[in-house]
Amino acid sequence: MPAFPPLPTARFASGALRIIDQTLLPGSHEVIALPSVDRVCEAIRLLRVRGAPAIGVAAAYGLLVAIEETWPGDTPVFASGIDDAGNVGAPRVTRVPAASLEELQSVLARAADAIGITRPTAVNLAWAIERMRGVWERAETAPDLLARLAAEADAILAGDLAMGRALTAHGAALLDDGDAVLTHCNTGGLATGGVGTALGVVFAARAEGKRIHVFADETRPLLQGGRLTAWECANRGVPVTLLVDGAAASLLASRRVRAVLVGADRIAANGDTANKIGTLGLAIHARRFGVPFYVVAPSSTIDASIAAGSAIPIEQRAADEVFRFGGAQSVSAAVSVYNPAFDVTPAELVTAIVTERGVHRPPYSFGTS
Amino acid sequence: MPAFPPLPTARFASGALRIIDQTLLPGSHEVIALPSVDRVCEAIRLLRVRGAPAIGVAAAYGLLVAIEETWPGDTPVFASGIDDAGNVGAPRVTRVPAASLEELQSVLARAADAIGITRPTAVNLAWAIERMRGVWERAETAPDLLARLAAEADAILAGDLAMGRALTAHGAALLDDGDAVLTHCNTGGLATGGVGTALGVVFAARAEGKRIHVFADETRPLLQGGRLTAWECANRGVPVTLLVDGAAASLLASRRVRAVLVGADRIAANGDTANKIGTLGLAIHARRFGVPFYVVAPSSTIDASIAAGSAIPIEQRAADEVFRFGGAQSVSAAVSVYNPAFDVTPAELVTAIVTERGVHRPPYSFGTS
Repeated sequence: MPAFPPLPTARFASGALRIIDQTLLPGSHEVIALPSVDRVCEAIRLLRVRGAPAIGVAAAYGLLVAIEETWPGDTPVFASGIDDAGNVGAPRVTRVPAASLEELQSVLARAADAIGITRPTAVNLAWAIERMRGVWERAETAPDLLARLAAEADAILAGDLAMGRALTAHGAALLDDGDAVLTHCNTGGLATGGVGTALGVVFAARAEGKRIHVFADETRPLLQGGRLTAWECANRGVPVTLLVDGAAASLLASRRVRAVLVGADRIAANGDTANKIGTLGLAIHARRFGVPFYVVAPSSTIDASIAAGSAIPIEQRAADEVFRFGGAQSVSAAVSVYNPAFDVTPAELVTAIVTERGVHRPPYSFGTS
Repeated sequence: MPAFPPLPTARFASGALRIIDQTLLPGSHEVIALPSVDRVCEAIRLLRVRGAPAIGVAAAYGLLVAIEETWPGDTPVFASGIDDAGNVGAPRVTRVPAASLEELQSVLARAADAIGITRPTAVNLAWAIERMRGVWERAETAPDLLARLAAEADAILAGDLAMGRALTAHGAALLDDGDAVLTHCNTGGLATGGVGTALGVVFAARAEGKRIHVFADETRPLLQGGRLTAWECANRGVPVTLLVDGAAASLLASRRVRAVLVGADRIAANGDTANKIGTLGLAIHARRFGVPFYVVAPSSTIDASIAAGSAIPIEQRAADEVFRFGGAQSVSAAVSVYNPAFDVTPAELVTAIVTERGVHRPPYSFGTS
């Protein structure tokens, strides 16, 4: 399968979580080191690292940071086996701190509590933390805990990269040479361990030699499309056209778009999909204009414990996100703001859900799989 | 009929066109005096005054400014009969300059040429100028020209105010006490002589004692909703909630909105409606969620010469409007922009079209009226 290099969205090196600070893009492309749980939590809350799978990776490595921070030394405790380019080797414990099993478990539990509440909707955050918790709770000695913890964090990233390769290959098979697609928010390497989901499908199709044109919703309020998707496409030489979110209906009406590709923050057992605010509107437009609407997400995004979308908790974010933009907008105290971070697209509007397992078609019944 | 005071969007006083500078809103509410044709043209070009009906009023008074500027004196030449509050009296010529009929006509023709090219797509601009030209070309003496010119400019504003009163009253009858409405762009007093169209309907309903909550799309790329609609509502004590354009589907899905109210830039004979980009998407969502979708516009917006919306020319605007916002978005040369100013909503999605003549229901056939 032709490959394309992953972005080093979130990696562990020199005792710290290292992320591409997405709040600085597209003006500046900087990798920043987060050497404390506080810094990790802040980075997730402020969307320096964002995208459900990327947050999961950051949370896993954030737990290694908790150990590094609590027991500092001349060398880091952990060395990740995965490099910036996504090459997967074996992680190592380079220094064993003077700590009991119970002390390590206690520090990890506190860090997990702090990291776990940074973002409520993305299921991957809780999923990654629970994977890590399973490791530290089952460990029988301190060295055993450390070795297994490093391996599990690396496994989460390696799994994400492999998942990205698999699901983007499944998705790429849905696109033909010369297609134009419309996407929303950012679902590329920046949203994941480095390969991407919906936008990664475009990169995978390109790696197979298909020419694909990307139309990118700017995605207010935080402009992930205008800042991140446009940057990733330009960065990889993929032609990209930016539009305001309100122009999507006009674009789809013009029949220039062959498919709508979006990611997901949580998928209910029946296929109802929570994703970035604006996704529901795109799905409704796609249906009206007969354009296939694909959700592309790892199977870890599927929450089989939730029967339908109405039960998915929706994060309401600060009014400031809408008022922002150089103070251009009304700041009168009489003006309130409706600013949900996500909306829920009913399964009936979803043409297919693409995961690393393949292309799922309706009726969806993930609860029984 | 209960009235609400119009905004003094564009008035003539002390020898100058006086406008609310809309580029300073919402941060600062300032009435600026434009004592020259150059300043009038600049104000229209830079959107200090905007909204098709408002531009028409500004153009008419801009022609009085041409006379004032060319023949200055201790007192102005003209005194408008319409005050800031929109009260209509008789205009007066307070000083007759030493100018021949031909000199006056020549100055007016030059000013009309300059003002006429500031926004070539705004139909009301040409319409107002042609009304004024009819007056100065038919005048037989200089004093006759001056008196008729002042009366015509005031008539254009007075007509706009009366039109606003009539159509907002028709629209208000569609709303009940306690309703919430969703609107797009700015269609209030700022877009007109001071009463408004779609947003004016809310103010008229409020004047009748109905409590109405406004949800306002921010309306990218130029944020007329966030800057102007939110300000107008707050200014009149109308509760208003701002949302990004992509959140409208989520809001309508929540069943909290009783009606969608929008304006129009051009309406074809069959009812297809060109309006600010994003309107088509709202209409599609409103249909899906069973919310009435009303177009509110003066009958002068109906272009009976155009059979259907597909024949309405759509202005593509500069990429810079989308890239703007403090350089937050991608400015890579590899990124292009899709930025139509308007979209076309098919008549089948329009529940009713409200003009000063009444509430029109489908099937629309304005071509034969």
